[in-house]
Amino acid sequence: MVKINDNFLKLPGSYLFSEVARRIAAYNAAHPEAEIIKLSIGDVTRPLVPAVTQAMHAAVDEMGTAEGFHGYGPEQGYEFLRQAIAQGDYASRGVDIQPNEIFVSDGAKSDCGNIGDIFGTDNIVAICDPVYPVYVDTNAMAGRAGEYQEELGRWSRLIYMPCVEANGFAPEPIRERADIIYICSPNNPTGAVMSREKLKAWVDYANANGSVILFDSAYEAFVASEDVPHTIFEIEGARTCAIEFRSFSKTAGFTGNRCAYTVVPMELERGGAKLNTLWNRRQCTKFNGVPYVVQRGAAAVYTPEGRAQIMANIGYYRENARIIREGLSAAGLTCFGGVDAPYIWLKTPDGVGSWDFFDQVLNRANVATTPGAGFGPSGESYIRLTAFGEAQATRTAVERVRNMFR
Amino acid sequence: MVKINDNFLKLPGSYLFSEVARRIAAYNAAHPEAEIIKLSIGDVTRPLVPAVTQAMHAAVDEMGTAEGFHGYGPEQGYEFLRQAIAQGDYASRGVDIQPNEIFVSDGAKSDCGNIGDIFGTDNIVAICDPVYPVYVDTNAMAGRAGEYQEELGRWSRLIYMPCVEANGFAPEPIRERADIIYICSPNNPTGAVMSREKLKAWVDYANANGSVILFDSAYEAFVASEDVPHTIFEIEGARTCAIEFRSFSKTAGFTGNRCAYTVVPMELERGGAKLNTLWNRRQCTKFNGVPYVVQRGAAAVYTPEGRAQIMANIGYYRENARIIREGLSAAGLTCFGGVDAPYIWLKTPDGVGSWDFFDQVLNRANVATTPGAGFGPSGESYIRLTAFGEAQATRTAVERVRNMFR
Repeated sequence: MVKINDNFLKLPGSYLFSEVARRIAAYNAAHPEAEIIKLSIGDVTRPLVPAVTQAMHAAVDEMGTAEGFHGYGPEQGYEFLRQAIAQGDYASRGVDIQPNEIFVSDGAKSDCGNIGDIFGTDNIVAICDPVYPVYVDTNAMAGRAGEYQEELGRWSRLIYMPCVEANGFAPEPIRERADIIYICSPNNPTGAVMSREKLKAWVDYANANGSVILFDSAYEAFVASEDVPHTIFEIEGARTCAIEFRSFSKTAGFTGNRCAYTVVPMELERGGAKLNTLWNRRQCTKFNGVPYVVQRGAAAVYTPEGRAQIMANIGYYRENARIIREGLSAAGLTCFGGVDAPYIWLKTPDGVGSWDFFDQVLNRANVATTPGAGFGPSGESYIRLTAFGEAQATRTAVERVRNMFR
Repeated sequence: MVKINDNFLKLPGSYLFSEVARRIAAYNAAHPEAEIIKLSIGDVTRPLVPAVTQAMHAAVDEMGTAEGFHGYGPEQGYEFLRQAIAQGDYASRGVDIQPNEIFVSDGAKSDCGNIGDIFGTDNIVAICDPVYPVYVDTNAMAGRAGEYQEELGRWSRLIYMPCVEANGFAPEPIRERADIIYICSPNNPTGAVMSREKLKAWVDYANANGSVILFDSAYEAFVASEDVPHTIFEIEGARTCAIEFRSFSKTAGFTGNRCAYTVVPMELERGGAKLNTLWNRRQCTKFNGVPYVVQRGAAAVYTPEGRAQIMANIGYYRENARIIREGLSAAGLTCFGGVDAPYIWLKTPDGVGSWDFFDQVLNRANVATTPGAGFGPSGESYIRLTAFGEAQATRTAVERVRNMFR
């Protein structure tokens, strides 16, 4: 009799987004005339830029000819894209990352989950609280999280690092030993960023303890502040302790186009093995590369036209973030994030619970948000607002929420 | 200190294809004038058909507009594609598979590997010998294969089912208990197929033992014989014991376009859990769907024009297979496969070793092949030839090999 992976049975339902959808639908049914604006979506809304669609059209044409056809590509990604990434995202910032340290993939979500394959199941994992659920669930599936404690909303074997107002929503290195540490900066859901100094402390911690930092910078394109690193490899010592996950999803609107990459430096060794070699073997065995057409689209992001066009879109979302942040702050609400990130982390007034405030805003302003408690216990009394909507709708939503407090 | 997954260190190097490439390169260097024809490639060479490129162009255009833009799609695939698959690959053959039993993915290789996530690591796995290396390596990575025994070229905990001339290269159910059984039909590398009768015996075995059959039919489009099933779900009882992997790679030339799907029937339960639910959770957590543009291309395969166009390509490869099979048989060589599959499994004359015959054919006919021994011990004294080349080159290659035996 086949044995299933029992760890799957320990997973609680993915309650957050389904419950948000259920409450919106219920409100809609009761108030069919209401025009609900969603500041809850974590997906981009601007179309692909012309440089990208032109490159994809050209690649589709190639694929339709005998001379231009591309079959299996390298599992690690085409050299033209790995080179463009090495140059455009690293060398241009004075960071030396070689193409053979870059693994092109179908998504940062896939890689953040799949990277677990190369690590033993007995490692101690540290995550932020609140947190992007994929880090938790993939470790739970692999058996690293222990048992789920319903009453606490926590797993028994994970180390939770509270991200709260007092630490700027960016934890300092912990006292306990953690083998694998997930850091997401700019952060989903809080919109906070790790300063150079704090990130250096984590790099030092990891090198001292033989830990590995899994650095998720899917929202890197939103970094605007001078003192915020764009890549962990700007930090001295990171090449011996960090793996970086990057994505074209938010940078270039690729959520429906599926392209990302993971950087595993050659110096990163544990247990006598190069992690680059292990990840390469994992990818060659369980992955077969990203579509040629998509890789051509991604490479176009690094052309001067592509760069200008995607930055215009990022600017559009940034302006939304500013409108939300400034508009709600002016109404007396306390907002975090939204400067170097597309997410605004709003403190509920008078410590009202996340879900209660979610309901208030939905009922009184007809604006959908995401309750912070859904991302972890320390998210209680916060809600997440996103800057990915349409500009006019975003203005209207902010105006409506402001009116709640007049 | 982080612990790596030690199972990775047990994996022997992936010797086969690198050694083939090395020998070809060495011969080329010594004989720069030689025009080597590769009957070794397992990749398609015909371009994408017009119905597919037209659909992809239209989808790229959509993605470039605010109204037509698609962000995150359903992790399981768009309904339009799941419907088209359910209708085109199943209902059309009288097989009832519902769209919610179909999971669209980026490749059968990915799915064949990732499916292991939902099973415990203590299951006993049975594979064919010779075999597609992904089944072995992914189980070795997960710790299900035991230790690698260098001298035998085998893993200690896997059950190897010899596929030899006596059983038509398709094993009967075994006496031992196997929890997970990989069956690939049409087979890579032997080109053999499982008859309805033999497949029924396996389905009965699996249902009697609570096993799960992982049925890889990536080469289904090549099935021509009446008595060969196109899907395992043509077999009574399969819905309670089988998962099927299908791909657009060989069907529609998508090796560089990356689209496949996996069918997990609703009735398939083990340990009180629906495997459909487990796989859905796995995919939602560690995968984010296939590019919209690619899914539109895949859906075009099911239109009347798309169907006619891809079948013309399959016909082209089939004709290559016929030329290889008949040409070499007429020269007194013994060939298997190549009727319902793009692979011809050639028995070496006088029991010569795979690698020796590979060298002979390379040196004397300037034709590259793949030594059968590379796929497992029972592949010794066979070589694999593929029908994916250009028609004229394939004819020339066959002529050259024939001349070796004149």
